[in-house]
Amino acid sequence: MTTTQQHDVTSPANQARLAHGLEVLDRIDAEAGRSVLDALADVAPALGHHIAAFAFGDIYDRPGLDPRSRQLVTLGVLTALGGCEAQLKVHVGAALNVGLSTEEITEAILHASVYCGFPRALNAIFVAKDVFTERDATPQ
Amino acid sequence: MTTTQQHDVTSPANQARLAHGLEVLDRIDAEAGRSVLDALADVAPALGHHIAAFAFGDIYDRPGLDPRSRQLVTLGVLTALGGCEAQLKVHVGAALNVGLSTEEITEAILHASVYCGFPRALNAIFVAKDVFTERDATPQ
Amino acid sequence: MTTTQQHDVTSPANQARLAHGLEVLDRIDAEAGRSVLDALADVAPALGHHIAAFAFGDIYDRPGLDPRSRQLVTLGVLTALGGCEAQLKVHVGAALNVGLSTEEITEAILHASVYCGFPRALNAIFVAKDVFTERDATPQ
Amino acid sequence: MTTTQQHDVTSPANQARLAHGLEVLDRIDAEAGRSVLDALADVAPALGHHIAAFAFGDIYDRPGLDPRSRQLVTLGVLTALGGCEAQLKVHVGAALNVGLSTEEITEAILHASVYCGFPRALNAIFVAKDVFTERDATPQ
Amino acid sequence: MTTTQQHDVTSPANQARLAHGLEVLDRIDAEAGRSVLDALADVAPALGHHIAAFAFGDIYDRPGLDPRSRQLVTLGVLTALGGCEAQLKVHVGAALNVGLSTEEITEAILHASVYCGFPRALNAIFVAKDVFTERDATPQ
Amino acid sequence: MTTTQQHDVTSPANQARLAHGLEVLDRIDAEAGRSVLDALADVAPALGHHIAAFAFGDIYDRPGLDPRSRQLVTLGVLTALGGCEAQLKVHVGAALNVGLSTEEITEAILHASVYCGFPRALNAIFVAKDVFTERDATPQ
Repeated sequence: MTTTQQHDVTSPANQARLAHGLEVLDRIDAEAGRSVLDALADVAPALGHHIAAFAFGDIYDRPGLDPRSRQLVTLGVLTALGGCEAQLKVHVGAALNVGLSTEEITEAILHASVYCGFPRALNAIFVAKDVFTERDATPQ
Repeated sequence: MTTTQQHDVTSPANQARLAHGLEVLDRIDAEAGRSVLDALADVAPALGHHIAAFAFGDIYDRPGLDPRSRQLVTLGVLTALGGCEAQLKVHVGAALNVGLSTEEITEAILHASVYCGFPRALNAIFVAKDVFTERDATPQ
Repeated sequence: MTTTQQHDVTSPANQARLAHGLEVLDRIDAEAGRSVLDALADVAPALGHHIAAFAFGDIYDRPGLDPRSRQLVTLGVLTALGGCEAQLKVHVGAALNVGLSTEEITEAILHASVYCGFPRALNAIFVAKDVFTERDATPQ
Repeated sequence: MTTTQQHDVTSPANQARLAHGLEVLDRIDAEAGRSVLDALADVAPALGHHIAAFAFGDIYDRPGLDPRSRQLVTLGVLTALGGCEAQLKVHVGAALNVGLSTEEITEAILHASVYCGFPRALNAIFVAKDVFTERDATPQ
Repeated sequence: MTTTQQHDVTSPANQARLAHGLEVLDRIDAEAGRSVLDALADVAPALGHHIAAFAFGDIYDRPGLDPRSRQLVTLGVLTALGGCEAQLKVHVGAALNVGLSTEEITEAILHASVYCGFPRALNAIFVAKDVFTERDATPQ
Repeated sequence: MTTTQQHDVTSPANQARLAHGLEVLDRIDAEAGRSVLDALADVAPALGHHIAAFAFGDIYDRPGLDPRSRQLVTLGVLTALGGCEAQLKVHVGAALNVGLSTEEITEAILHASVYCGFPRALNAIFVAKDVFTERDATPQ
C-alpha cells in the first residue's frame, strides 16, 4: 500500500486488516461486536473500522496472552473506568465465551473493588448479573 | 468478639485477622507490602490494618480466582485508574512473584491501552520497566 | 476463628461481623442498603457481605468521625467519581437520615463543582433533586 | 458592590453578571442551556447562576479562543471524563451551533479515542449520533 | 460594570471581586494559596484570578456550609480524583487551619477508601503525612 | 499481507505502516515522539509500534480535522484525564509546533477548568509553563 493512503479505511490493505479483525471479533463475541459496528456504520464508520482492525486484529489476536487473561484485564479496566456499562456488558459476555465462569467473573469484580472502591464494583456486578440472567447462567 | 468493638483494630479478633492478612501479603510481596504498612504506622495505622486484614486476608485469599488471575485484574484496574504509580510498582512486582512473565505483564498493559488509551498505558509500562530493571528481568 | 477460614463468609465469626455491619447499615439507611444487599444475594453474596461487614461494620462505625462528616466526604467522593448515580442516590438519602439538610447537601455539591467541574456537579444535583422529591423535601 | 455580599447571587451586581452570562449562553445553545437552568431553579439555583455567570459570562466569552476551538476542547474533556452524556449532548448541539460539522465532531471523538480509549469514545459517538438524528444532520 | 467587559479581569468590578476572593483565601491558607497564584502570574493570570474570585470569593464564602464541612467535601473530591497531590497538600493544610484534627483528616481519607479504593487513599494519606510532618502535627 | 500475521509488527506491511506513522509523528514533534519510542524499545516495542503506526499513521493523519484542532481536543482529553503530565508535556510542545500560540494553549486549559475543575487545570497549566520556559515562549 502507499503509506500516504494509510488513513483511507476503504483501501484494499485496510479492508484486509478489517476482515482479519472481524474474524477475531467473531471468535470472541460475534453478535455483540457486530451490533456495535452496525450502530457505528452511519455515524462514525472509521471508529468501527479501527475497533475491529486495530483493537481486535492487531492487539487482541497477539499471542502473548490468552483470551481468558485478556478478558480479566479488560474486566479490571472497565470496572475501574466506570460509566462503560455498555462495553462491560459486551465483555462480560465475551468473558463467558472464552471460558471464564460466572464465579470467576464475579470474583474478578469483587477483587477489583479493593482497588477502585465498592461503587464501581457494584455497577459492574449488576451488569454481570444482567448478562448472566440473559444467558440463564447464574453463579452457584 | 463483641461486635460493638468490631472497629477496634487492637482487639484479639482483629489482631488475628491482621496476622492472617499479613501471611497472605507475605506470600505475594513481603518486602513491598511491609514497607507500605510501616510507612502508615505513625499516620494511619487503621488504613494499614484494613489493607492487610481486608484486602489481603478477606479478598485476595479467596479461592475463587488464582493469584495470577488476580494480578491481571489488578494490572487492569491500576493502569486504568492512573496516578497510582506507587501501587502499580508493588503490583508489577507481585505479578512477577506469582508467576506472570515480563512479557505477559507488558502484554496486559498493551491490551489495556485499547480500553483506557495510550497515555495511561505508557505510564504503566514505564513503571513496569523500572521494576524489571530493578529485578534484572527484561522482556525478550 | 481459624484464620485459614477467614475468607469463608459463612463462618460464625464472619456472620457476627455481618450482623454488626447490618446494624450500622440499618441505622443509616435500612431500606436502601438492604435493597442493594438483596440484589447481590444471588450473584455476588460475598460482595454484599463485605459492604456490610467491612464498609459499614469496620469503617463507618469508627468513632473518629461523626456520620454527618462521613456523609460529606462520601458526597465529595461520589460526585467526583461520576457514574455512581445509584450509589449517590443511597448516600443522599443517608445524608438526610444523619441530619444534613437539603440545603447543606446541595451546597456540598456546589462546593465540589470547583474541584471536579460543573458536569459532575450537575449529575449529582439531579440525583439529589430526585431524592428530595421522593421524600417531599425541597431546599428553601 | 460590597464584597462581603459577593456570595449573594440576588445582588444587582450578580444579576448583571447573570444577565451577561445568559446572553452568552443564548448565543451558543439557548434551548438546552435554559432547560438545564430551569431544572436547577428549585433545587440549586446558585449552581445555575454560576454556570451562567461564571462558565459562560466569565470564561466562554473571553476573546482568547473562538467558540469553535472552545467546543473542540469541551468535546475532548467530556469524552475523557465519561459519565457526562447529558452534558455532552448539550455540547454536541453547541458544537453544531458554532459551526463544527458532523464530520468534524465525529473526527474529534475518534481522535480522542487514542488518548482515552475506545469505550469512552463509543459512548460519546452514540450521544453525537442521537443529536445528529434529532437535528436531521448525519455525517456524509 | 458593563457586562460586555465582564471577561476583563483587570476591570474595577473584577478587581473588587479578586480582592474579596483573596481575603477569603487568606483566612483559609494565605501562604499556600498566594504561592499558587504567584506561580500562575506569568503564565495564566486569569486562571489565578478566577480561582481567587470565583472559587473562594463566590463559592467558599457562601454561608450554607461551614469551612470544616467544606474541607471534608474537598478531601473527598481530591482523594477520589487522584493525581491532585499538589492541591491535596494545600487542602490538608487548609483543613488543619479551619479546625479539623489530624485524626479527623486521616479518618476522612480512610472513609473515602471504601468508595474510591485503597490506592487513591494511600496516595492521599502520604500527602497528609507530609503536611503533618512539616507542621510537626502527628495523629495520636 | 496474510492477515493471520497481522499481529507481527516486524512484517513488511507493518513496517510500512510504522514508517508512515513515524513520518506523521516527525512532522508534529520528532524529538519528543522519538524519545518515547526509544524508551519503549527494550520493554514494550509493540506499544511503541502501535502508537506510531495506529495513533499517528492511522488517526492523526486523517484529513477530517486539521492538526491545530486535533491538539485542542488532545489538550482537553489530557487535562481531564489527569496524571498524564508526561504526555501533556509532549502535546503542549506539539500544540506549539502546529501553530497554537501560548495564549491559546493556556486559554484552552482555562476553558477546560469549567468542565473538569481547577485542580486538573492547575496541573496542566504548570506543565504548559514548563514547556513554555524550555522554549523561551511566554504568554503576553
